[in-house]
Amino acid sequence: MAGAHLGADVWLSEYITPYDMYVHGLTKILAYKKTPYQEMYIVETGAYGKALVLDGKWQSSVGDEFIYHEALVHPAMVSHPNPENVLILGGGEGATTREVFRWHSVKKAMMVDIDGDVVEACRQYLPEMHQGSFDDPRLQLVIGDAFEVIDNSSAEWDIIISDLSDPIEEGPSFQLFTKEYFERLKRILRNDNSIVVIQAGPVSPADVHLHARLFNTLKTVFSHVYSYFAPTCTYGSPWGFILASQTPINTRPDPEQIDKILQEKTKGGFRTFDGIALLGMLNTPGYIRKKIATETQIYTLDNPPVFFGQGVNK
Amino acid sequence: MAGAHLGADVWLSEYITPYDMYVHGLTKILAYKKTPYQEMYIVETGAYGKALVLDGKWQSSVGDEFIYHEALVHPAMVSHPNPENVLILGGGEGATTREVFRWHSVKKAMMVDIDGDVVEACRQYLPEMHQGSFDDPRLQLVIGDAFEVIDNSSAEWDIIISDLSDPIEEGPSFQLFTKEYFERLKRILRNDNSIVVIQAGPVSPADVHLHARLFNTLKTVFSHVYSYFAPTCTYGSPWGFILASQTPINTRPDPEQIDKILQEKTKGGFRTFDGIALLGMLNTPGYIRKKIATETQIYTLDNPPVFFGQGVNK
Amino acid sequence: MAGAHLGADVWLSEYITPYDMYVHGLTKILAYKKTPYQEMYIVETGAYGKALVLDGKWQSSVGDEFIYHEALVHPAMVSHPNPENVLILGGGEGATTREVFRWHSVKKAMMVDIDGDVVEACRQYLPEMHQGSFDDPRLQLVIGDAFEVIDNSSAEWDIIISDLSDPIEEGPSFQLFTKEYFERLKRILRNDNSIVVIQAGPVSPADVHLHARLFNTLKTVFSHVYSYFAPTCTYGSPWGFILASQTPINTRPDPEQIDKILQEKTKGGFRTFDGIALLGMLNTPGYIRKKIATETQIYTLDNPPVFFGQGVNK
Amino acid sequence: MAGAHLGADVWLSEYITPYDMYVHGLTKILAYKKTPYQEMYIVETGAYGKALVLDGKWQSSVGDEFIYHEALVHPAMVSHPNPENVLILGGGEGATTREVFRWHSVKKAMMVDIDGDVVEACRQYLPEMHQGSFDDPRLQLVIGDAFEVIDNSSAEWDIIISDLSDPIEEGPSFQLFTKEYFERLKRILRNDNSIVVIQAGPVSPADVHLHARLFNTLKTVFSHVYSYFAPTCTYGSPWGFILASQTPINTRPDPEQIDKILQEKTKGGFRTFDGIALLGMLNTPGYIRKKIATETQIYTLDNPPVFFGQGVNK
Repeated sequence: MAGAHLGADVWLSEYITPYDMYVHGLTKILAYKKTPYQEMYIVETGAYGKALVLDGKWQSSVGDEFIYHEALVHPAMVSHPNPENVLILGGGEGATTREVFRWHSVKKAMMVDIDGDVVEACRQYLPEMHQGSFDDPRLQLVIGDAFEVIDNSSAEWDIIISDLSDPIEEGPSFQLFTKEYFERLKRILRNDNSIVVIQAGPVSPADVHLHARLFNTLKTVFSHVYSYFAPTCTYGSPWGFILASQTPINTRPDPEQIDKILQEKTKGGFRTFDGIALLGMLNTPGYIRKKIATETQIYTLDNPPVFFGQGVNK
Repeated sequence: MAGAHLGADVWLSEYITPYDMYVHGLTKILAYKKTPYQEMYIVETGAYGKALVLDGKWQSSVGDEFIYHEALVHPAMVSHPNPENVLILGGGEGATTREVFRWHSVKKAMMVDIDGDVVEACRQYLPEMHQGSFDDPRLQLVIGDAFEVIDNSSAEWDIIISDLSDPIEEGPSFQLFTKEYFERLKRILRNDNSIVVIQAGPVSPADVHLHARLFNTLKTVFSHVYSYFAPTCTYGSPWGFILASQTPINTRPDPEQIDKILQEKTKGGFRTFDGIALLGMLNTPGYIRKKIATETQIYTLDNPPVFFGQGVNK
Repeated sequence: MAGAHLGADVWLSEYITPYDMYVHGLTKILAYKKTPYQEMYIVETGAYGKALVLDGKWQSSVGDEFIYHEALVHPAMVSHPNPENVLILGGGEGATTREVFRWHSVKKAMMVDIDGDVVEACRQYLPEMHQGSFDDPRLQLVIGDAFEVIDNSSAEWDIIISDLSDPIEEGPSFQLFTKEYFERLKRILRNDNSIVVIQAGPVSPADVHLHARLFNTLKTVFSHVYSYFAPTCTYGSPWGFILASQTPINTRPDPEQIDKILQEKTKGGFRTFDGIALLGMLNTPGYIRKKIATETQIYTLDNPPVFFGQGVNK
Repeated sequence: MAGAHLGADVWLSEYITPYDMYVHGLTKILAYKKTPYQEMYIVETGAYGKALVLDGKWQSSVGDEFIYHEALVHPAMVSHPNPENVLILGGGEGATTREVFRWHSVKKAMMVDIDGDVVEACRQYLPEMHQGSFDDPRLQLVIGDAFEVIDNSSAEWDIIISDLSDPIEEGPSFQLFTKEYFERLKRILRNDNSIVVIQAGPVSPADVHLHARLFNTLKTVFSHVYSYFAPTCTYGSPWGFILASQTPINTRPDPEQIDKILQEKTKGGFRTFDGIALLGMLNTPGYIRKKIATETQIYTLDNPPVFFGQGVNK
């Protein structure tokens, strides 16, 4: 009556909390490298196909990455009147860029990823993810430090998408989730229609305070801030996102109206996003809103986020 | 850079697919029994508190059961003009009953669970879940076979809630997820306002076909059928539900209107459900709707569902 | 081609090193308690039957405990001309005592275990292990502190058997593996024929230095010290033992002679011990002897052993 | 008090029984390939260094392979008066060959391994294992089928070493563990002094019957058969070996005499083997001898062994 017929010998343990693991069975190793920045695996899994794993943390898999990437990109894009210049921080798989390029209005997308080895390996091994987006002439790919790009950029961005890896202790990205960093992002926005969207951590009850603190932090910088989530299955937790702008965003859009916009302004090909999905996403579960309403802490360079990885949540 | 500081020695592996496990660290065993029907654990976990586990399958935990139980109960209740008689199939923890009794209109709730040992243990060890609902005078608790209750019931139910364990191979519940069973349920509904709601399996991309088939099956029996989901974290997958009725249900409710209804017609105490949450739930991700639109199979007694457990998905 | 059909849902992870785990599938929980001293499980496993687990560390299982207990007890007993008084430190399962009572010459066995709850549970749930040894009139069972017994004992013991749990960090037993403690043991030996034997840690290459340091430590106290091991399967490592005495022990015994002694002086019933097994045990692999020859550290109260558990090996 | 600080994210689960796993934490992937015969990993582990893994089964690791390979090779070699021609079946790592070449008398060693990709990868990535043995002019390396070599060989071998992977169901090697195969081996032995030695499965109590059946099977073919074992830590079980010959082997050798032979007839460099180790090995635990004495089954082509892997033990 007990047990199960497992399909794998080699397993990747994603440590979610000290008491929760999502364990992925691997069927093939496609690429492995210790880069100057992190340990990279590109693997094949039995249930979700090929996947990218960095420092033991599941980044995305072919079988369900669309849930994450479409949620990350399109609510911001569709809420902007005419997104031309898009800045992508992180996003090594090329899937965020792929979604951005669905929009006809986009004239320039700059993607900044610190790890050229990862980008190169994704390009080679994960064509299902980038789908040629690395070759789009509108793309400016910068292998380098996001800080530098932000410091040297002019106020030109319609959309800034923060697709960074989680701010785990001693990881390279935790400073990029602070008030100081969000203020710098604000300075390089083109105008008040511009929108920032960030991947904003797990929203499981055990971890939703992290998301709430990111919300709080953005709220100290932007006039209008919105939390939403997507059911990212292979992360072992639903995932939070936050939209921030100086202009309000309509959280009760008319689905048919949205579908019409998508038809006119994109080349289509969405796997889960449409008007109904957007309406659903922007109307979030009460427990997330309650946590945001009661959480008081904000993240600063002096008090940055520390997600569970090797350390503990803060 | 790798690994993590784990908090437990004893781990419960929930086998989601042959290549995916959600593994829960246990910090205490509160009760254990091999009942005539199943193997029961009531445990304490580090991240989500006390939990009920049957035949190795995670049923619910104190820390996140509200996400499942509020989603299971309230969309049906709020969509009915005046729910008086409620039939609950399964629901051993008493949490479904707890949610039903939030509604002032409820005159009778009959809960049918096959396993008296489990109900007794939940009553004793999980007061956080039932919160006294077992002592409500409106409750008729039947320890027995759901089939028998259904066969002998008159057409009296305003709401029927199927809170059964998953239809795993050789499990006791798989027949209760078939066309023939849904037809019997229809016969004991009070009138065309009556609503059936079922827990309808995982909606992760790897498993969403199971949900789609349940939808298809209900569609052969009821005029109006609606799929929705909740981000049930500790199941290792978001979870699907299906509403079925002979009367249409409004999937674009006005959140403020819903909140007003909740204030008038319930005693409150919701942890995540409200008007906004309902609007979000009823507007589902596109990939679920697409799977439902293309899936053609239905479940019958001759071709019942077989979820992954010890066997394989069908 | 990959994977396996597993038999359990609940698993006990024994952490051997930060990179090695032996994971035991549990089929039943027989008893569970947080005692004042430790967390106790008595479980049933599929491959090795019932087992005792303390603080997440596998103590012994019905299916292979004879390998450990016969190796712990009989080399000392058979090497002593006439063992009458035997002191057992630890040994909660009653299996060490069971083996001691095979010897006709034994007049008194005092067993000292700090945790009465564990002893009581073993008595109730593990009759296969103690086999009634708790009821032998020659047994003096002391629930209390080994230190106190040692301090208050006169020089009366022919054999002292240290069957303590591993000296993990912040565990209760680590002081009992130090030079100072071994000196106290020496003081309560009856005469120069007396023998001390200790369970002396894993002898896998990754951990054999711990065994070597225990050997070194005993060598500073006793004239004659001997290392040996047994292939304790469910520990995830072969296990080391050390004999110490003021009189030499013959490591090349004649097997037939030993078998004759066993026949005369014991009631029999051995499952693995005999003359050939003793000859094999006392002639150990070279890598253990080489590690002992080169290891220089000793354990004292100021520098006690710290085995991997929650901490790190020292 | 519970849990541990783990060092790895990616884990290899070695399924020992349906209820027992040895789980190895991987710190690096050095090579990965799906060869025509099997899935190969060469990995780095935290506790035992580099390791070879085939079809999810741990083959050997730099940190403890000497325990296996010295036990496999030297009892046979030292028991033969003058081993010149040695046939090695399997042994892809080159470590068995390495040990054979310690003996001055060896004129020819033929190693037959079916998987050239594995041999090539070991040659490149595991120099610690082969230590140049692939380049020894006495080596004849045959990438091919052991059956063919056996069928076409003349009666020339002083020593035949069967270092094959376990006979798991549908694996390539199970026929090579049968009576018919052992009869063929006998036919290609040089003379009555010749010795066959095989790796003969785990000797943990849960699996020792497999070893006993192999012993029985060899006993139907050879006049003199001897079981022994080595404490192979990372296999999650001590490992059995069997010597078979038409001439008796001395199981009570004089250790000092053996050490003298080793000094004269080998180039040294042993990490665990010597006279004392040999005396210990040849005098085995009683439970193994008892199982051999009572087990009646033998393995034939019609009734071959099936070790636990994906299937079940037989």
